Amino acid sequence: MLSEFELIARYFDRPQAPDNVVKLGVGDDCALLAPPPGQTLAISTDMLVEGRHFFAGADPEKLGHKALAVNLSDLAAMGAKPMAFTLALALPSADENWLAGFARGLFALADAEGIRLIGGDTTRGPLNLCITVMGSVPVDEALRRDAAKNGDDLWVSGTLGDARLALEVLKGNLTLTPALLSLAEERLHRPTPRCALGMALRGIAHAAIDVSDGLLGDLGHLLARSQLGAEIDAASLPAGPAVAQQAADRQTDYMLNGGDDYELCFTAPPEQRDAVLSAAASVNTPITRIGRLKSGAGIQILDTAGKSLPFTSQSFDHFGKDI
Amino acid sequence: MLSEFELIARYFDRPQAPDNVVKLGVGDDCALLAPPPGQTLAISTDMLVEGRHFFAGADPEKLGHKALAVNLSDLAAMGAKPMAFTLALALPSADENWLAGFARGLFALADAEGIRLIGGDTTRGPLNLCITVMGSVPVDEALRRDAAKNGDDLWVSGTLGDARLALEVLKGNLTLTPALLSLAEERLHRPTPRCALGMALRGIAHAAIDVSDGLLGDLGHLLARSQLGAEIDAASLPAGPAVAQQAADRQTDYMLNGGDDYELCFTAPPEQRDAVLSAAASVNTPITRIGRLKSGAGIQILDTAGKSLPFTSQSFDHFGKDI
Repeated sequence: MLSEFELIARYFDRPQAPDNVVKLGVGDDCALLAPPPGQTLAISTDMLVEGRHFFAGADPEKLGHKALAVNLSDLAAMGAKPMAFTLALALPSADENWLAGFARGLFALADAEGIRLIGGDTTRGPLNLCITVMGSVPVDEALRRDAAKNGDDLWVSGTLGDARLALEVLKGNLTLTPALLSLAEERLHRPTPRCALGMALRGIAHAAIDVSDGLLGDLGHLLARSQLGAEIDAASLPAGPAVAQQAADRQTDYMLNGGDDYELCFTAPPEQRDAVLSAAASVNTPITRIGRLKSGAGIQILDTAGKSLPFTSQSFDHFGKDI
Repeated sequence: MLSEFELIARYFDRPQAPDNVVKLGVGDDCALLAPPPGQTLAISTDMLVEGRHFFAGADPEKLGHKALAVNLSDLAAMGAKPMAFTLALALPSADENWLAGFARGLFALADAEGIRLIGGDTTRGPLNLCITVMGSVPVDEALRRDAAKNGDDLWVSGTLGDARLALEVLKGNLTLTPALLSLAEERLHRPTPRCALGMALRGIAHAAIDVSDGLLGDLGHLLARSQLGAEIDAASLPAGPAVAQQAADRQTDYMLNGGDDYELCFTAPPEQRDAVLSAAASVNTPITRIGRLKSGAGIQILDTAGKSLPFTSQSFDHFGKDI
């Protein structure tokens, strides 16, 4: 049986020389991090609990990817450049197969984003993963939720709805062909944090949020902080390739209320449309203009004739229901 | 039943204007933090699990204090000035009495240290508290574990052993008079993070670690990183007022292997003795010189005649046993 210290040494301590960002990594009371001069440190933390954010018995490698990805997605939504992260891990037992898989998924994404694990904690307990990410961003260029302006275009990256579709299949509520399920599951298990897009939108976009609990719910938070309302053109919503094969109503519902998409929803002034498109192209990230901000409150979903459709937010509440 | 957002708003969102440190607090995708120019950011994370780090049914107010205190203790051991913290919380249910008590204990300590909660996450799940603290320290003055020098004095703050004594009583292995138990329990439930001492020792002490898992175990980590050994004079160890009433062997055992003391163990050159004492006096923190560093490896416990005593490290392993 591995002790706490053996476990850390074997799976999570990857000695690296200090660099410009990480002055001291794993193994002391604290890590020491040096943000670039003149920038603020962007910090976010997310806790993933078995049975709530992922199924019991979930593939540890996918979980390692996803646990870091959902945190990086918060940095992306701030326009922050990822710097480093900490990991606190409660495990029912020191299962070496699980740990090896988890570490593989975690570090593959960390390496792809060029960031280091700088500290953490491990303990026995019901499976729980808590990651805190740190990034850097010039304070005036952060894509804050409260910075949207009346008349801004509303944009979303990538596609929506496939993660929710996969979840419904895994819960036994729907069936899909293996090929479509595999497409949809990729979105559920391996979300792509849009860090490059977030950084490219600095100085161009006004406000951003990542779509984790469903577009309507998350956009609602942004609108509340900016004291604005929005219109969304239903026909413009970018459907994921799997959900695009579903009936129209389910398609729209999953795109609006799906959750787990980890795309960026952002606002920018109409005169910046070309700049927005160039920024997205420069980082090879597809984006779609889906509506506009307006005064007032709430979100209206419009059909192609401009008529309001009866969709309401059913945002995922982590205190409400299980997966 | 409170939703996740209502819960955060009611207990954890205390709107405050931006200041020099916190440019953006709770409520966005990330918090934005500005470390003082020329300083590094010290970061540490600790996860507390019910049944492992605290008893089921533990007083939530004490838990709120302790969860933050054990994290601040890591900043203290680095000589870092506390700046801010995040909190991720898994709760079996949104019990308002529990939340109110927890928030009271947490914010009482946060206010005393002058730091703000800048972000977090709440979810339903088996009770689990994960706090990440951020502090600032000039990179060259950080009290790193690997910075001890051969010949350094070995010091410890406050007293040792009372927290372990309380734990043994609460587990039913010992009995104490109510007055002594109350003294000892105070140490177990309400540790005092030694942040002021850590900061006062910048530029004077070489290396430091906080005593969380037991003096011998924690000192062992410091020695391993510094590639040194140590001698401890058993008679010099500062016993807590409750453990001081116990038989000599138990006293020494609990002081050496107790854990949960959250005192600072640090090293400084003998020529800095007066400076060390002045620094501690300036922050009203009692300290005791308990031994010295030497070449080689391992820790020897010496009696007053300089003879080696047969104590060995039984450091607490968070993967090994329950509370």
